[in-house]
Amino acid sequence: MEIEDIAQRVLAGDRRALARAITLVESARADHRAQATALIDRLARDGREALRIGLSGTPGVGKSTFIEAFGLMLTGLGLKVAVLAVDPSSARSGGSILGDKTRMERLSREARAFIRPSPSQAQMGGVARRSREAILLCEAAGYDVILIETVGVGQSETMVAGMSDLFVLLLAPAGGDELQGVKRGIMEMADLILVNKADGDLKAVAARTQADYAGALRLLRRRPQDPEGYTRAMPVSAIEETGLAAAWAAMTELADWRRAEGHFAANRAEQARAWFEEEVRAGLLADLRRPGPAQEAMARLGAGVQAGEMTAVAAADEMLRLLGRG
Amino acid sequence: MEIEDIAQRVLAGDRRALARAITLVESARADHRAQATALIDRLARDGREALRIGLSGTPGVGKSTFIEAFGLMLTGLGLKVAVLAVDPSSARSGGSILGDKTRMERLSREARAFIRPSPSQAQMGGVARRSREAILLCEAAGYDVILIETVGVGQSETMVAGMSDLFVLLLAPAGGDELQGVKRGIMEMADLILVNKADGDLKAVAARTQADYAGALRLLRRRPQDPEGYTRAMPVSAIEETGLAAAWAAMTELADWRRAEGHFAANRAEQARAWFEEEVRAGLLADLRRPGPAQEAMARLGAGVQAGEMTAVAAADEMLRLLGRG
Repeated sequence: MEIEDIAQRVLAGDRRALARAITLVESARADHRAQATALIDRLARDGREALRIGLSGTPGVGKSTFIEAFGLMLTGLGLKVAVLAVDPSSARSGGSILGDKTRMERLSREARAFIRPSPSQAQMGGVARRSREAILLCEAAGYDVILIETVGVGQSETMVAGMSDLFVLLLAPAGGDELQGVKRGIMEMADLILVNKADGDLKAVAARTQADYAGALRLLRRRPQDPEGYTRAMPVSAIEETGLAAAWAAMTELADWRRAEGHFAANRAEQARAWFEEEVRAGLLADLRRPGPAQEAMARLGAGVQAGEMTAVAAADEMLRLLGRG
Repeated sequence: MEIEDIAQRVLAGDRRALARAITLVESARADHRAQATALIDRLARDGREALRIGLSGTPGVGKSTFIEAFGLMLTGLGLKVAVLAVDPSSARSGGSILGDKTRMERLSREARAFIRPSPSQAQMGGVARRSREAILLCEAAGYDVILIETVGVGQSETMVAGMSDLFVLLLAPAGGDELQGVKRGIMEMADLILVNKADGDLKAVAARTQADYAGALRLLRRRPQDPEGYTRAMPVSAIEETGLAAAWAAMTELADWRRAEGHFAANRAEQARAWFEEEVRAGLLADLRRPGPAQEAMARLGAGVQAGEMTAVAAADEMLRLLGRG
């Protein structure tokens, strides 16, 4: 059977098979979807577990450079590293702003690295499911660390944090005023804040920025999933490759502590539940787009609203009645 | 009847009645919801039309100062101005970052102005519906201009643009590098870019920033809803109150052109249709949270997923079967 063949090759760590499997879970075709579900189901039984690290940063912060330097350090330690991009904006702009492998040329040439750009035609709900499935595939393929990168827009950060074991925020050195630009909610979500570009002319500013964030973080309530006295802001330089080992040490230490305390497994269980709820919501909504009476009623009532014949709310009530609800 | 009484007072321009009506549409209670729907339905028949201006800007850009100065200029022209805040992050952070009326003390004392901060406990879907209904209420109350402000996070900007006739992006003077921080999708969405703080030391930087954006905009394809040769970036100073009249002239000119060309009505019709589709989606999802067999099955299957007894996807399939779909 073809699915079993792909599964075997993914489990053996074959990167081409992994890429093909991810293409399968990214497909919107119904037959592909069924195959993808079967494949995920087959591979989930394997039980391999990577450290899933969500990584967010606004454009210009040097995220690609950081991922390349950090990834190379990890592969240098003998670890297998997968990089997945989650970019919900690619649907709107018609192309991924996270770009392609050429951003991380050195890392992409590493045998122990796997880089997957975000698909260019996806919707918000679809992005989450596909990303979660791609993570499972990378885990099955034996990757030790999965970096799930996203851009700093509120919604996508929440999404990526919801599928990661650790959530890392990469920030640029900045003046005191700009600290306000990072919202409290995002700061509270972050397990580790890295201030990049701690090099050259910006070294002093980066140190100050790091201290500012560390100070701001101390004012926040300690979260149950953090050990007492845990420091959550550190300076790094992706270009000079400094601070990377310290950042990795902080991440593994935190992950180990959470494993020992039960937070790690509890977080994954909670994430699985949230995924289930999302799948149900997505499934309900998918009905409206599938050819059939529901889609036809949506089109007819939508045209009526557009023509000004009825209000949006009245038409929605009518539609929900037709669906046997509301 | 009480609803008719509120409706009459809103139509008469009574600000206390308007505030009360908005509180009603913001309520999650089922009986309030029914009253709100009746009220909206009653008032929608009136057919008053304001200019709905969506306004987005990141924290620190001087949005409150701009709205106050711009609003006071408009009330000075004899226009009635309503300010509504749309802040989806307030649900997560537990409080609105857009603050309250004290931000705009002078404007809030104006008889021709109405300022409504965003509700503090709302969900993304809920925010959109309540904001749309609040807009309709302000229109019915005879406001000429409705400023719908939001913070610069991708999702909320799309939402606000989807309920506005014009979408204005307020930006701060910045170096060339930071231009990249504004995503192409957001730039394409903007009908007008205003570079604030074109005053004092920042005047020259603001002029350069404005020229940079104007240049970037010229590279974008002309949109059908814009007149030939339309310039979309201008400098303003909220503090020195300069450029405000020019900005208002650009907005009214654009709105008039769109009215004449049919784009204005077509946009509103399209927005009404999108609203209908959102309402249907929200109604379908509301079932899952309502006490009853669906909610119980969600809880039971969710617990099974959390306990690791079944995968998220398998549990979702089961749930959709129970709902008679999937």
